Amino acid sequence: MSQYCIGIDLGGTFIKAALVDEEMTLRAQAAAPTPADRGPDGVIETMAATAEGLLVEGGIDPRDVLGVGIGSPGPLDLENGLVIGMPNIPGFDNVPIRDRLAARLAAPAVLENDANAAALGEFLAGSGRDVEHMVLLTLGTGLGSGIIIAGRLLHGAHGLGGELGHLIVQPGGEPCGCGQRGCLERYTSATYLARYARRLVEQGRGGALADVFARTGEITSKDVAEAAGAGDELAGEVWDRAVRHLAIGCVNVCRILDPDLIVLGGGMAKAGDDLLDPLREHFRREHWNLAEIRTALALASLGNDAGVLGAAGVAWQRFAP
Amino acid sequence: MSQYCIGIDLGGTFIKAALVDEEMTLRAQAAAPTPADRGPDGVIETMAATAEGLLVEGGIDPRDVLGVGIGSPGPLDLENGLVIGMPNIPGFDNVPIRDRLAARLAAPAVLENDANAAALGEFLAGSGRDVEHMVLLTLGTGLGSGIIIAGRLLHGAHGLGGELGHLIVQPGGEPCGCGQRGCLERYTSATYLARYARRLVEQGRGGALADVFARTGEITSKDVAEAAGAGDELAGEVWDRAVRHLAIGCVNVCRILDPDLIVLGGGMAKAGDDLLDPLREHFRREHWNLAEIRTALALASLGNDAGVLGAAGVAWQRFAP
Repeated sequence: MSQYCIGIDLGGTFIKAALVDEEMTLRAQAAAPTPADRGPDGVIETMAATAEGLLVEGGIDPRDVLGVGIGSPGPLDLENGLVIGMPNIPGFDNVPIRDRLAARLAAPAVLENDANAAALGEFLAGSGRDVEHMVLLTLGTGLGSGIIIAGRLLHGAHGLGGELGHLIVQPGGEPCGCGQRGCLERYTSATYLARYARRLVEQGRGGALADVFARTGEITSKDVAEAAGAGDELAGEVWDRAVRHLAIGCVNVCRILDPDLIVLGGGMAKAGDDLLDPLREHFRREHWNLAEIRTALALASLGNDAGVLGAAGVAWQRFAP
Repeated sequence: MSQYCIGIDLGGTFIKAALVDEEMTLRAQAAAPTPADRGPDGVIETMAATAEGLLVEGGIDPRDVLGVGIGSPGPLDLENGLVIGMPNIPGFDNVPIRDRLAARLAAPAVLENDANAAALGEFLAGSGRDVEHMVLLTLGTGLGSGIIIAGRLLHGAHGLGGELGHLIVQPGGEPCGCGQRGCLERYTSATYLARYARRLVEQGRGGALADVFARTGEITSKDVAEAAGAGDELAGEVWDRAVRHLAIGCVNVCRILDPDLIVLGGGMAKAGDDLLDPLREHFRREHWNLAEIRTALALASLGNDAGVLGAAGVAWQRFAP
């Protein structure tokens, strides 16, 4: 008799669910638009229905479901399974999402924040499969992160650990939405690339990005990555500055956590070797010389499946006998 | 029948040994000057003899010694129990200090770096007795640190974790002896206080520290702390800048590790509330506003005994049945 865990990834746009076996193989998955206008009740019902659909379609006996893992944006109360609030979905105010889904699906459930779930996904089924200590840096709107030590997610004393995007790397530097100044994610994230490029263009710098801005009225991180790849000077400068700060983030990760592997995901990582090659060069340059570099850098390999796989992985770690 | 662990703290000036019971009570201790001129053989023999003396004087049967913990400056190969090199004692070149002491004392031994041992000492027997997740920051020549997660020291994949003094907090900033630029310990440590004060005095700033410098030809961190406490403007400015950077270090510790408690030890911590009060104020100011502050700040309570107690604690954790 096979057993399964269900992973559910709650996003601002889509809800995803996956059926995952003990080998961390994704046996089936489904997605549905997040009904943000229907509030917590509608969102939780859609999460449950999406998960149930997987069982029905696969002819799986619900008694073979060992547990349900939920990956959600925060802030969360992990211990009590609550969504404290949700930036993009109104109405979530200390909602007991874990217990409501457990009751609805008649299986034990566990709640995890989405960045941590993605890190566990890459660790159990992706680029970190063969290591013990891993950090995932997700370079998107912000710089998200998850930390795995000896095979387990690091949560800290109050569930607030693993926020590497809010390491202060420029005391008194750029103000961050979190209330701090000089956070790492203000210097290296997809949002940063777009914002810093636009600032330079508005100051009169020319080239490919000025043309994009004149034509479309905006500059995206993808514009910066492409123009940098094509040799545009300004784009190259913006890209290089972000990559250098990312390298400093990687050095800081080594100084504190000394992982086997740092995995890079998110929008900026779509540049592939155009990110990894200069990152490794900056990393070597910024790294201390007291011991040789032993932490490897690699790209994430699960893409958008990391979150839902990792959510199932959280359930496997919690509920496996 | 009582059982004991022996802790041995190898310092550049003194070797200390302590007999520690299961309650982490220091039952006896002894110290001897470190015979640096007699090389590894002389140093290891003095370590063993100092430990043996405790047993003889206390009338302890060597068979009641469960194990020996050794705290040593690095770099170390923890897994193989080797001292790779020793900045202040010549001749240590991959010396198997763990196995030589185990053979000499006829008890199992374990090697740990001295900063980690001190952190475990404060955790098991000092200011961190009642918490689960703790970080020790030792503000001396450099900024040393040790990290305890769920009751255990964090080592990382290659024994290189927990080096918070070498977090990069000013990209491209002050060069550090480690080969990096802008390390936290270049902005907050006893050495920093003395060096930065001297730089400002040499640039022509007056006051109490200029008088000290004119009289003695040097400025120590103690001079800065005392003059700051007495209201000297320049000293206050130097002290405040160091404390602000220390607060940024504490914020970074929260962002990554989210401990229950950050403990401050070493020379700068001798200032007591003159450190703790302004540190808490800067910490509140630099801390994000996404969640209330839940990590406490406190002074270390074991003084110079932290290292030798912690070394014994390492042995208790490793060898207790």
